[in-house]
Amino acid sequence: MTSAVSSPSATTSPARGLVCRACGAEYPLVAQHACYECFGPLEVAYDQDALARVTREQIEAGPQNIWRYAGLLPAGQDPATRVTLDPGLTPLVESPALAAAVGLRAPLYVKDDSANPTHSFKDRVVSVALTAARGLGFTRFACASTGNLANSVAAHAARVGAPSIVFIPHDLEQGKIITTAVYGGELVAIEGSYDDVNRLCGELVETDEFEDTAFVNVNVRPFYAEGSKTLGYEVAEQLGWRIPAQVVIPMASGELLTKVDKAFSELVEIGLATAPEGGWVVFGAQSAGCNPIATALQQGTDQIVPVKPTGIAKSLNIGDPAAGAYAIEAVRRTGGWMDYADDDEIRDGIRLLAETTGIFAETAGGTTVAVLKKLVASGKLDPEKETVVYNTGDGLKTLDAVADLVGPTHTIKPSLRGAREAGLLG
Amino acid sequence: MTSAVSSPSATTSPARGLVCRACGAEYPLVAQHACYECFGPLEVAYDQDALARVTREQIEAGPQNIWRYAGLLPAGQDPATRVTLDPGLTPLVESPALAAAVGLRAPLYVKDDSANPTHSFKDRVVSVALTAARGLGFTRFACASTGNLANSVAAHAARVGAPSIVFIPHDLEQGKIITTAVYGGELVAIEGSYDDVNRLCGELVETDEFEDTAFVNVNVRPFYAEGSKTLGYEVAEQLGWRIPAQVVIPMASGELLTKVDKAFSELVEIGLATAPEGGWVVFGAQSAGCNPIATALQQGTDQIVPVKPTGIAKSLNIGDPAAGAYAIEAVRRTGGWMDYADDDEIRDGIRLLAETTGIFAETAGGTTVAVLKKLVASGKLDPEKETVVYNTGDGLKTLDAVADLVGPTHTIKPSLRGAREAGLLG
Repeated sequence: MTSAVSSPSATTSPARGLVCRACGAEYPLVAQHACYECFGPLEVAYDQDALARVTREQIEAGPQNIWRYAGLLPAGQDPATRVTLDPGLTPLVESPALAAAVGLRAPLYVKDDSANPTHSFKDRVVSVALTAARGLGFTRFACASTGNLANSVAAHAARVGAPSIVFIPHDLEQGKIITTAVYGGELVAIEGSYDDVNRLCGELVETDEFEDTAFVNVNVRPFYAEGSKTLGYEVAEQLGWRIPAQVVIPMASGELLTKVDKAFSELVEIGLATAPEGGWVVFGAQSAGCNPIATALQQGTDQIVPVKPTGIAKSLNIGDPAAGAYAIEAVRRTGGWMDYADDDEIRDGIRLLAETTGIFAETAGGTTVAVLKKLVASGKLDPEKETVVYNTGDGLKTLDAVADLVGPTHTIKPSLRGAREAGLLG
Repeated sequence: MTSAVSSPSATTSPARGLVCRACGAEYPLVAQHACYECFGPLEVAYDQDALARVTREQIEAGPQNIWRYAGLLPAGQDPATRVTLDPGLTPLVESPALAAAVGLRAPLYVKDDSANPTHSFKDRVVSVALTAARGLGFTRFACASTGNLANSVAAHAARVGAPSIVFIPHDLEQGKIITTAVYGGELVAIEGSYDDVNRLCGELVETDEFEDTAFVNVNVRPFYAEGSKTLGYEVAEQLGWRIPAQVVIPMASGELLTKVDKAFSELVEIGLATAPEGGWVVFGAQSAGCNPIATALQQGTDQIVPVKPTGIAKSLNIGDPAAGAYAIEAVRRTGGWMDYADDDEIRDGIRLLAETTGIFAETAGGTTVAVLKKLVASGKLDPEKETVVYNTGDGLKTLDAVADLVGPTHTIKPSLRGAREAGLLG
């Protein structure tokens, strides 16, 4: 119940090093995100024997948050080392009404990550990244962010009393700016796009002044990315240790999609979960204002042409997506598809999820629901198969998206006469 | 893990009827909130033998939400009957930094109810009220609300596909209006205060047109109020089945405070938790703009003089608090105190909690932290004793409160030169 409860036997990290996703070159577990040989992205490689020793019983006896999966993560096995708000184990909500509305005839679940401490899935990746970062000796925490990540890094730093410096595009939603600034760290607004912010952070991390600083999605990115695996583990566990037949996942960098797929593979390989007949199928969702990954997939190529993002789904606005090619690979390999939704469809997706399921999603969640609907309509997604759709953030952070569409249905004087005149008494 | 998991042996309600808090008259379990004899408020009475049969083991084997305490609640023993978003089991976060900042030398915990599905403690009371209401045959769900309750009722109704009609003061924070309207039910803005809204709902509930309608805080109020007990049960369980020495609780109607105190009493009576040496002490927090309960207590009277609320802590703005006298009784009996904070102190309280603990509270939480600080400074609260402070809502819903106070610390061009000019490179 308290955060001090831990899985009994996962006391050392199962990570054995970093490996280049492009050329396979291997590196030790250090703060490095690109291959010295080929400049490819690095990811964490595991000791398969260590992973295989993790049992369902260990996990189920663990805390009610991501750390129950510590035996499958690169850091945080010792609870005392964690830099964390204890995110995770968010609700998996079955929604027959949403299924009916989009034309699914099989069970449909919403994995609702707005339930995390700062109300987005970013708490997962930040907890893992900052825990690894502190273990590597970093004392200041930073990120380049489209908003949710900024909230999470600033809140994590406040929780452990560490300094933070967060970089955001200057034109973010007010909710995401205030919800970062309130934690009291440094907050730097950049007059440019997220891609500009990311580029600048890539330069700052090389300076002497930032030597003590872990940028969660730059120099400790391999650890950060692993945190997303918990969104795969949890869904499988919540379904009774089964991988769902179909998943629909929003894409910004594309990394979340690749890591959920990786989590499913790991669970099957080490015998913790069963795959559906014919394997699982992964679908990706983008917005029409920023659809470089979906466009490449639909055009049958691996070559992602960067775009200048527009539109209301700002948390997905990464025009030059680092993991796009790997997301395409996962979707092609599993027989899935990608699609994108425009701003009006995104707003409709937010309302549809709220009205059918009682979950108020931010624009990213609206995008995913809108794309789910399109995938059913186009026949790309099988309406007879169990499906999980991921909501990664909270509608309270993007109120502007629906502010003009919803409001009081009546405004009346405080009297029965007022109620009668408004038609509330027949 | 899923909501279908239930405590094995709590299959029937331990409630035996309603009882008048003023004259003790007894009634069956129906939709009634005032005594026919003396007009006093009714509350749920329990079969003490049934409560005494509940064990720690049963609770600990239950679901990770309020329904683990179903054996101590008036409704929802059968999971299939629940109208619920499965709220509860929210984090109890120890904050040494906040303790140091306010001058406490004993452990200080924040019970963070912003982690509930619609991000306030109201999900608890709504789940219990609507579950009871459906059992009583009601088909439409309603409330009078200062905002958080509106969000929760509308979301609960959407989750189960029921119609809802929610009444709010017209001048609420935009975040709370949109976050209700998005779920698609009827939303009626009243040109008046919360007390006007509440009065009108008391009239509407008597009309034929509202015969099918459960107003969670009017005609099914006795059931609604019981949901707040879970905020007492959880803190005790999370502390290892110990009641904390001191608790600080925000007050609107005053009901939350009385029910946390009631929960502690129940747990001790039935032997599930141990009381601290000398008993627990309850403190109440209001805002300077709406302080009728605290004023009465401080003046040594039971007579609460209604006020016209002002100030930013709108979720606490009940000028004529229904349970005020009972809150005063609980605070006097336990040797506690009440105080209130003005708008600037509330804003400082929000920032202090965020900066020290990584929790972004709404104005009600800021009020409670500000009052905690005052209570330590005035010597009313013992700085050497373990203390729990309740945060009942989320800062994302009251962004305006801090919007003028916090923001980017720097705004720069996207280049190393921009970073250098802003002093970020030494």
